[in-house]
Amino acid sequence: MAEYANLTKEELLAKKGALTQQYQALKALGRKLDMSRGRPSIAQLDDSNDMLDVLNSRTNLISKDGIDVRNYGDLDGIPECKELFAGLLNVRPSQIIVGGNSSLQLMYDAIAKAYCFGVLGSERPWCKEEKLKFLCPVPGYDRHFAITEEFGFEMINVPMTDEGPDMDMVERLVQDDAAIKGIWCVPVYSNPDGIVYSDETVRRMAALKPAAKDFRIFWDNAYFLHHLYEDCQASIPNIIEECQKAGNPNMVYEFMSTSKVTFAGGGVSVMASSEENIAFLKKQLAVQTISNDKINQLRHVLYLKNAQGVKEHMKNHANSLRPKFEVVQNALQTHLAGKGIGTWRNPKGGYFVSFFALNGCAAKIVKLCKEAGLVMTGAGAAYPYGKDPSDSNIRISPSAPTVEELSAAMELFCVCVELASVEKLLEEK
Amino acid sequence: MAEYANLTKEELLAKKGALTQQYQALKALGRKLDMSRGRPSIAQLDDSNDMLDVLNSRTNLISKDGIDVRNYGDLDGIPECKELFAGLLNVRPSQIIVGGNSSLQLMYDAIAKAYCFGVLGSERPWCKEEKLKFLCPVPGYDRHFAITEEFGFEMINVPMTDEGPDMDMVERLVQDDAAIKGIWCVPVYSNPDGIVYSDETVRRMAALKPAAKDFRIFWDNAYFLHHLYEDCQASIPNIIEECQKAGNPNMVYEFMSTSKVTFAGGGVSVMASSEENIAFLKKQLAVQTISNDKINQLRHVLYLKNAQGVKEHMKNHANSLRPKFEVVQNALQTHLAGKGIGTWRNPKGGYFVSFFALNGCAAKIVKLCKEAGLVMTGAGAAYPYGKDPSDSNIRISPSAPTVEELSAAMELFCVCVELASVEKLLEEK
Repeated sequence: MAEYANLTKEELLAKKGALTQQYQALKALGRKLDMSRGRPSIAQLDDSNDMLDVLNSRTNLISKDGIDVRNYGDLDGIPECKELFAGLLNVRPSQIIVGGNSSLQLMYDAIAKAYCFGVLGSERPWCKEEKLKFLCPVPGYDRHFAITEEFGFEMINVPMTDEGPDMDMVERLVQDDAAIKGIWCVPVYSNPDGIVYSDETVRRMAALKPAAKDFRIFWDNAYFLHHLYEDCQASIPNIIEECQKAGNPNMVYEFMSTSKVTFAGGGVSVMASSEENIAFLKKQLAVQTISNDKINQLRHVLYLKNAQGVKEHMKNHANSLRPKFEVVQNALQTHLAGKGIGTWRNPKGGYFVSFFALNGCAAKIVKLCKEAGLVMTGAGAAYPYGKDPSDSNIRISPSAPTVEELSAAMELFCVCVELASVEKLLEEK
Repeated sequence: MAEYANLTKEELLAKKGALTQQYQALKALGRKLDMSRGRPSIAQLDDSNDMLDVLNSRTNLISKDGIDVRNYGDLDGIPECKELFAGLLNVRPSQIIVGGNSSLQLMYDAIAKAYCFGVLGSERPWCKEEKLKFLCPVPGYDRHFAITEEFGFEMINVPMTDEGPDMDMVERLVQDDAAIKGIWCVPVYSNPDGIVYSDETVRRMAALKPAAKDFRIFWDNAYFLHHLYEDCQASIPNIIEECQKAGNPNMVYEFMSTSKVTFAGGGVSVMASSEENIAFLKKQLAVQTISNDKINQLRHVLYLKNAQGVKEHMKNHANSLRPKFEVVQNALQTHLAGKGIGTWRNPKGGYFVSFFALNGCAAKIVKLCKEAGLVMTGAGAAYPYGKDPSDSNIRISPSAPTVEELSAAMELFCVCVELASVEKLLEEK
């Protein structure tokens, strides 16, 4: 098949006519489709429904340390819940704070507290600095960038490579500029690319020598359990250990949650770091709350049991998600391969597929989709300030729709990609 | 009985001898008693245990607006939960944000967001002001004061009267000083005095004319449902309505939670304010989290049903707490009345009894208690910076111990009060 860029104007016009017909026909079906957010499907939620039965009025509600989980106490979580997550993250329970239902909120709060009071070792609260900057590997997670935008950081785009963020650039930037206070990382099955950081990337990250002595890596390990294939499971070095080895023991905050293990709205969130950081943060946390919801912590422990139990449970999610990711890959391959109008990644885990259209086409494609009843994540959402400099990246979120809906959505998506690309190429003729 | 102040040195020495013997005898029992915090008792927690059975894997988990409570969504809470609390607070559901398990955290977050970004109508974030001050009615809630201390506010003590904070002083201060950004209020059964604000106090509060245009009343309505007696239930004017009437519609943030309705560690928290404030705060909240735990919200709705259901449920708490408050009053009356060595309040609700010792005796009494095995809230805790200028106030928290433990604790407490008072009077002879 000829790449579209090599077609003549007449050939492109013919394509445009045919694609417009296809598009109008699909639009006329009046479908309501949504591939906009990484929401678990109903089937995935149902797979955790037994968790709602493991704790009831007859359950022993006293935690290992003798605290009644219904009452106040255990600011940083009940011991058995800290053990569960310590086992998953390969840290000690003393390196864990269990939060509420949202790891995003833990990250927001960590930034907010740094802003108001500074982190361990800060010379002053971040809000007293003249200028604040943050490194943002792109494409990345829109809600990360929304936090640093809200707090007035100047966000600096760092391109993602197949091995994670461009570390030459990261090293140079943090070494030269003391205004750079942190970096957002999703190290395993990154959002949206599904890239797994290489061991070298993790080690270079841990060994950074930032000009800002209170620089922090925000290591959002949201998807390290979220493999699609049993025989192809990414694993990366333990960042907390690597930071320790590199002489930067307090440089990283790691986050995870069970939002995509049990319930997106009723999970448990976790922060892990050096014991010194955790002790510092617990003092601040003691002013903010008395304890998080320990009943839900115990419910999780009773249901998931231990690290091995979590890993077993994740197979259900893999079985739900794998066919959907395959629908996406097949559709892209079938409709777009060889046409030179887009590239895409084929992740082995996580929640997203990153699609790169011809430059200048992403917003147009998302608009065409929307007008025909398919909601996509906004073009540019994966970039700070919502601005994709190339207007190229589109995040595909296949988890929430059924396989049937997804097939329909991908058919429409591919037509929109073709149509927008042909129009773009025609403009250039 | 002669007041101790009128006794001769010899009479006091004789008392001291007898009291020391009593004290040593009680100490020798080696009891472990705790009246330090307003924790619900096990019996109270058990009274809500059925809530753990109302929601299970067979429950309809779709909220009124069609959102699956297990999934993301409904940032400000599920509609039925907002309705429940709107019914209790006499506001519209659109004036409600349902939070996580801690209203303290909602208050902290409200202060933190004001500090970082300002409130609706702020000219600048509070952190950019040269000086920040906050009014603190005293005695008050130590965790309130810890928040404003953490954020660097200069805290100004405002004495409590039988009708609430000294409003002459409040009016004068806020009118004269634009650095004063807010006031902490526990308007019903105040912590620790159990004072109920008079209607006039509420209306004067709502009609304040602060120099700071972004002044906020933090109205922590923690105990408005927490009556001890059916025939003596405090009620106060609706502060949100009163602020509206007085032309200050955005001046108040109201808070409540079910920490002392259902489970202290597994409840639901609520913030209420003008629709304009709520819209403003929801935009900020959308950056912080995707949603709070809606499963627990639904659990509360299924269990408590509506405002009337909550009020019925509160009778269980009254039945648990009333005998304990009576033990406290009886002990104080029996052992201390007429001796001129202390005064105390007799609240009709809430969680605390405020005791005022002779000036300069509170820390000594708490120390004596501790050395004999009874943990009290630290002397001075009810004052900003933990400093009671008179060293007089002690907060008694009768909820957690059993009636038997409480009787023992109060016996010991009264001996400590007598002993410290006699020693103090001897010093002055």
